[in-house]
Amino acid sequence: MKADVYADTCPSREILYRIGGKWTALIICSLSRGPLRFGELRRKIGGISQKMLTQTLRGLERDGLLRRHVRAERPIRVEYELTELGHGLYGVIEPLIDWAETQMNRIRRNRTRFDAAERRP
Amino acid sequence: MKADVYADTCPSREILYRIGGKWTALIICSLSRGPLRFGELRRKIGGISQKMLTQTLRGLERDGLLRRHVRAERPIRVEYELTELGHGLYGVIEPLIDWAETQMNRIRRNRTRFDAAERRP
Repeated sequence: MKADVYADTCPSREILYRIGGKWTALIICSLSRGPLRFGELRRKIGGISQKMLTQTLRGLERDGLLRRHVRAERPIRVEYELTELGHGLYGVIEPLIDWAETQMNRIRRNRTRFDAAERRP
Repeated sequence: MKADVYADTCPSREILYRIGGKWTALIICSLSRGPLRFGELRRKIGGISQKMLTQTLRGLERDGLLRRHVRAERPIRVEYELTELGHGLYGVIEPLIDWAETQMNRIRRNRTRFDAAERRP
């Protein structure tokens, strides 16, 4: 099937939404340096709830972007790690996060200017 | 202010959400080859409503990512074009769209496999 993200019905559109999902980028980037446990992820990503982290991890596992790794230790240790596909996604998400961090102050200034112009009589 | 996208309260987090917003990537990429009118954008991006396009364009204008250009013609012609900042964003979004289109079928196969394994007794 030929992909066309501009077409309403193309599955690539839904995959783009997944990537853009509220927590996806942060989880993928958090795992880029190696596997982490659930609690470690939750501490790293400020503001994520247990429920949202569980749901998003499961969705990303279903997509084949990460794998859940149960270590036969006592107590049982569950880790999440990026697959090859997940590392590929990290490669295109990381510049986006960099951009957001770098341009943050510029965008905030633009918003202030826009709102001030709106208020002008 | 130092940006940290992992911090719940950092404005870069909200900017990341903006980029990941349902329609942002498609609008930014649609405008990458030159200005378009509202109706042209709406026809290009399958499934977007008039209300959502209006709202998203306004948000992107406020961020300084695009500008609204009113041409003194009859009938009046309104065009939307990327700013320099918007072109910069395009540079990091385009690889993401490419990735979504390229990996679409692989991700769909992963989902089918995952769901089949779930159903196994």
